[in-house]
Amino acid sequence: MPAPILTLTTDFGLSDHYVGVMKGVILGICPDAQIVDISHQVSRYAIGEGAFTIAQAYRYFPPGTVHVAVVDPGVGSPRRPIVVEAAGQLFVGPDNGVFGMIFAGEKHEVRLIRNRRYFREPVSHTFHGRDIFAPVAAHLAAGVAPSSIGEILETYVRPSFENARQIDAWTWEGEILKVDRFGNVITNFHAEDFPTLEELAVGQAKARRLVRSYAEAPEGELVVLAGSSGYLEVSLNRGSAAQEIGCRAGEVCRIRV
Amino acid sequence: MPAPILTLTTDFGLSDHYVGVMKGVILGICPDAQIVDISHQVSRYAIGEGAFTIAQAYRYFPPGTVHVAVVDPGVGSPRRPIVVEAAGQLFVGPDNGVFGMIFAGEKHEVRLIRNRRYFREPVSHTFHGRDIFAPVAAHLAAGVAPSSIGEILETYVRPSFENARQIDAWTWEGEILKVDRFGNVITNFHAEDFPTLEELAVGQAKARRLVRSYAEAPEGELVVLAGSSGYLEVSLNRGSAAQEIGCRAGEVCRIRV
Amino acid sequence: MPAPILTLTTDFGLSDHYVGVMKGVILGICPDAQIVDISHQVSRYAIGEGAFTIAQAYRYFPPGTVHVAVVDPGVGSPRRPIVVEAAGQLFVGPDNGVFGMIFAGEKHEVRLIRNRRYFREPVSHTFHGRDIFAPVAAHLAAGVAPSSIGEILETYVRPSFENARQIDAWTWEGEILKVDRFGNVITNFHAEDFPTLEELAVGQAKARRLVRSYAEAPEGELVVLAGSSGYLEVSLNRGSAAQEIGCRAGEVCRIRV
Repeated sequence: MPAPILTLTTDFGLSDHYVGVMKGVILGICPDAQIVDISHQVSRYAIGEGAFTIAQAYRYFPPGTVHVAVVDPGVGSPRRPIVVEAAGQLFVGPDNGVFGMIFAGEKHEVRLIRNRRYFREPVSHTFHGRDIFAPVAAHLAAGVAPSSIGEILETYVRPSFENARQIDAWTWEGEILKVDRFGNVITNFHAEDFPTLEELAVGQAKARRLVRSYAEAPEGELVVLAGSSGYLEVSLNRGSAAQEIGCRAGEVCRIRV
Repeated sequence: MPAPILTLTTDFGLSDHYVGVMKGVILGICPDAQIVDISHQVSRYAIGEGAFTIAQAYRYFPPGTVHVAVVDPGVGSPRRPIVVEAAGQLFVGPDNGVFGMIFAGEKHEVRLIRNRRYFREPVSHTFHGRDIFAPVAAHLAAGVAPSSIGEILETYVRPSFENARQIDAWTWEGEILKVDRFGNVITNFHAEDFPTLEELAVGQAKARRLVRSYAEAPEGELVVLAGSSGYLEVSLNRGSAAQEIGCRAGEVCRIRV
Repeated sequence: MPAPILTLTTDFGLSDHYVGVMKGVILGICPDAQIVDISHQVSRYAIGEGAFTIAQAYRYFPPGTVHVAVVDPGVGSPRRPIVVEAAGQLFVGPDNGVFGMIFAGEKHEVRLIRNRRYFREPVSHTFHGRDIFAPVAAHLAAGVAPSSIGEILETYVRPSFENARQIDAWTWEGEILKVDRFGNVITNFHAEDFPTLEELAVGQAKARRLVRSYAEAPEGELVVLAGSSGYLEVSLNRGSAAQEIGCRAGEVCRIRV
């Protein structure tokens, strides 16, 4: 039987001991876990960016994978811990919208994490990644059933990151979901909805050419392409589109067809 | 039998090949090792920060874990390589104080690393992480007894990072151990020694409110809390306390009760 | 039988989901793979730096290791994907010179990656790391023979990063291959070719003292040493030589004997 896979997505960064501590807790409970880091460099407290990151990654993992996502500005407040079943996988984290893009795309069932026998005691007020999310995820990876963790929730936080808004017959308004390391500006326009376009504008900057790959773009020209994420991206061949435009995640963008 | 766990804490960063090389050496000796990164972004040559990092992490790992810590400005000098037994775990690194916080908190036994049959030959003058620490740790993880590595040392480097100093009946002076990624200012005041306080001061900045979680702090106000590390931290809800104060590791702080 | 080892070297950084996605794809195909990150912080599009990184790392891994290197500004262009057999190991990546230093040092055989049955379909135009390199490498790690992947290539990209050029009887001209995290300036002068020297110059800066370890260097003085890489490095004890000199990868250096 293959080792259970457990992924981690956090805003903890890599300088501190926090991620290592979570892995120690996991391996104490589920010694043969394959632990995979998705990213620990989600911007601090940026729930939307965390939601994008885990939503982009989960579909490439085998069935049964347990994903932990901890972008959790509300740790210690009454916000609830949850476990989500969707797409044959499990998701563990705070009920703050970090799984919002998975809710939008997959049939899912959400449970409250309540059974303290799967917690690490005493539970701190500042590090639920260590005391709740890591141990619960490790128990799930080791075979505990989600139904043992807690009861089904009917209401939970469901943000809508993804809704581009139609302005007129030819124009939609959307949002920048993420700027990646290459400076690609990832919008929330689904590539399949826009097989052609006249212009994608971010602030004053406009991209008019739709290309298939970064290498196809004439050097120095902003272009649009259907990124590996499934969304339209504004890119600059061998340069940073985001730096050229001067934009970042959360800003408005407009597409005209 | 579960795979042996081996952790790494270094100041090597993640841009170079150094960490990957250590892992290659480890897997050549102990192919089924579970290798866990604690951090490779300890500030360059910052032995105290390395000591804090490994001391914060080890207790969350299962018995038998082998921890390697390489923050080693003296590589190639006569500083000695050591292996430490403490808390049912093993620690491998230079004798420069990087295990000082473990010495302070745990019964321990220190051995010189001397038996060259467990080294990678030829041993370089610049990369003992690759040539001594990684292979010795891998042999230990694979079952070699510490007594085979070298003899017990009676004297070794024992810095005292942790001693807050009492100034008068109401005041103690301490030190900032670490600023974490969230800008939390971690002091060396043990939380349990200060269940209440009047004021924690860093330079001109003062925090007077003791809270239990980041979320409890009024926005924009510096607060004190018992961090997940067991020390008092100065924090700013959804902001960076360190940036607000303008302080960093090593600086003096004062508490008044 | 030990788990197959698969290493990753990319310029993807650690903030995005890209590396995690590659690992998900790999584990779906080869569930017991030991995945080791060499570095994901190769400078963007810097093929030479990627070539240096993987060439420095591979020799420390056991026979049979599969190395994936993706520094791939030409993704989506007609540049070819290749698999290389050398030194009892396998290398998977684009045919753009990223394996050039391995070609220079090892007997090798290069194959075109052609057999689409080992790809992830549909193959995107922007993320061959996910759709071609990761799955092909995982199949190789799982036991597929390189001969099943595609036919032998006679011509492929072979850059020469390493050739120091003799200027006169006493002088050679070379290049900075890499500045590491410690600010060590790694040149392409092979240490064994220069057991003694009069001076190593980078721009106006000159280092005249040859030492064996960083710790041997008088503080504040630029020194030369035979680095763990096998090349001569210019270093500054507890400081950054690169910052002191103001130089970076790709710049010219000169040695006089």
